Amino acid sequence: MRTIDPVKHAAQRRRILRAASTCFADKGFHRTRTADICARVGMSPGNLFHYFPSKHAIITTILEQEGTETAAHLTEPGSTADPLAALFTLVDAAVALAADPTYAVLTLDTAAEARRDQNIGALAARNDRQLRTGIADLLRRAVAAGRIDDTLDPDRAATWVTAQIDGLFARGAADPDFAPLDRAPTLHLLLTRFLGAEPT
Amino acid sequence: MRTIDPVKHAAQRRRILRAASTCFADKGFHRTRTADICARVGMSPGNLFHYFPSKHAIITTILEQEGTETAAHLTEPGSTADPLAALFTLVDAAVALAADPTYAVLTLDTAAEARRDQNIGALAARNDRQLRTGIADLLRRAVAAGRIDDTLDPDRAATWVTAQIDGLFARGAADPDFAPLDRAPTLHLLLTRFLGAEPT
Repeated sequence: MRTIDPVKHAAQRRRILRAASTCFADKGFHRTRTADICARVGMSPGNLFHYFPSKHAIITTILEQEGTETAAHLTEPGSTADPLAALFTLVDAAVALAADPTYAVLTLDTAAEARRDQNIGALAARNDRQLRTGIADLLRRAVAAGRIDDTLDPDRAATWVTAQIDGLFARGAADPDFAPLDRAPTLHLLLTRFLGAEPT
Repeated sequence: MRTIDPVKHAAQRRRILRAASTCFADKGFHRTRTADICARVGMSPGNLFHYFPSKHAIITTILEQEGTETAAHLTEPGSTADPLAALFTLVDAAVALAADPTYAVLTLDTAAEARRDQNIGALAARNDRQLRTGIADLLRRAVAAGRIDDTLDPDRAATWVTAQIDGLFARGAADPDFAPLDRAPTLHLLLTRFLGAEPT
């Protein structure tokens, strides 16, 4: 029996996930063949299957990782001390991701595919709910801390903050001239004014 | 030679476009076969080809119609008299469209496909530019009319208003509990505060 080095195994999985993301962004989920991923990562199909049993398992792993990364942002220690700053940090992390065209187009594909594939749908819905309720929670705590307008309904406000993050990725994919980092100050202004927050 | 009744011909084309939109939303562009569209519309492939030469022609026609509808919104007579009201009318039209799940998922698919198909990409980019510059123009005129904050850069503000519209469609596809019409008042509040407009 082969001995598996867990560090090397994890590194190979990350390489495969990156290669697969690029393939999905280039050709879409359905037109990407496992052979395309193998070619990009420089690995035989037999070897690839040591890491992922199927193309579908790669997609669901990408979504699971996304959920883990969002959770890490939402639970970072700073969010307790300053929920409003934590919200802006989360938005800035999304801005940085949207600046990556592969990630931006993959986000749109996943959202569309979520309607058609039950597993992808369940994972995408869980990620979305986590982000939305996480933002609502930050807003609720920002209201309690007197940092934002207390007449806002945190859940309703969170819907539109989340929509703004969705829209950020859609801009990245739709508008060739869109430079998220360059446009971020106006996004900060929008959120600051909407939330009735003190300008930072 | 067959005589073509232009009114009947246009009605059949609309029926095909509606059926195709549903198929695309259900299965995606690539997995939808012309036979699926024929089955839904109740028409033989031979007959379908009297209206559209290919599946691709159906997709591009859907995008062209979208552009025409946006242009109609942007140039309606009211927009000259009250550019701010025209902006909210445009946003409300998008809210109504996002309430249709077929339309919402089709929007995401098109945005993802625009990166992969040159024709679809060119049409989607043209539609997007039209919407974005149309919104920037409404904002510019709203500034001139003293209706919104004159320190805002209309182009930069338009980017985020457009992103909010993108996000509206993404919400419609991603969140099963999202009811656009129910949530529209908070969107109005967000735009009113961002733009420094008088509450309507």
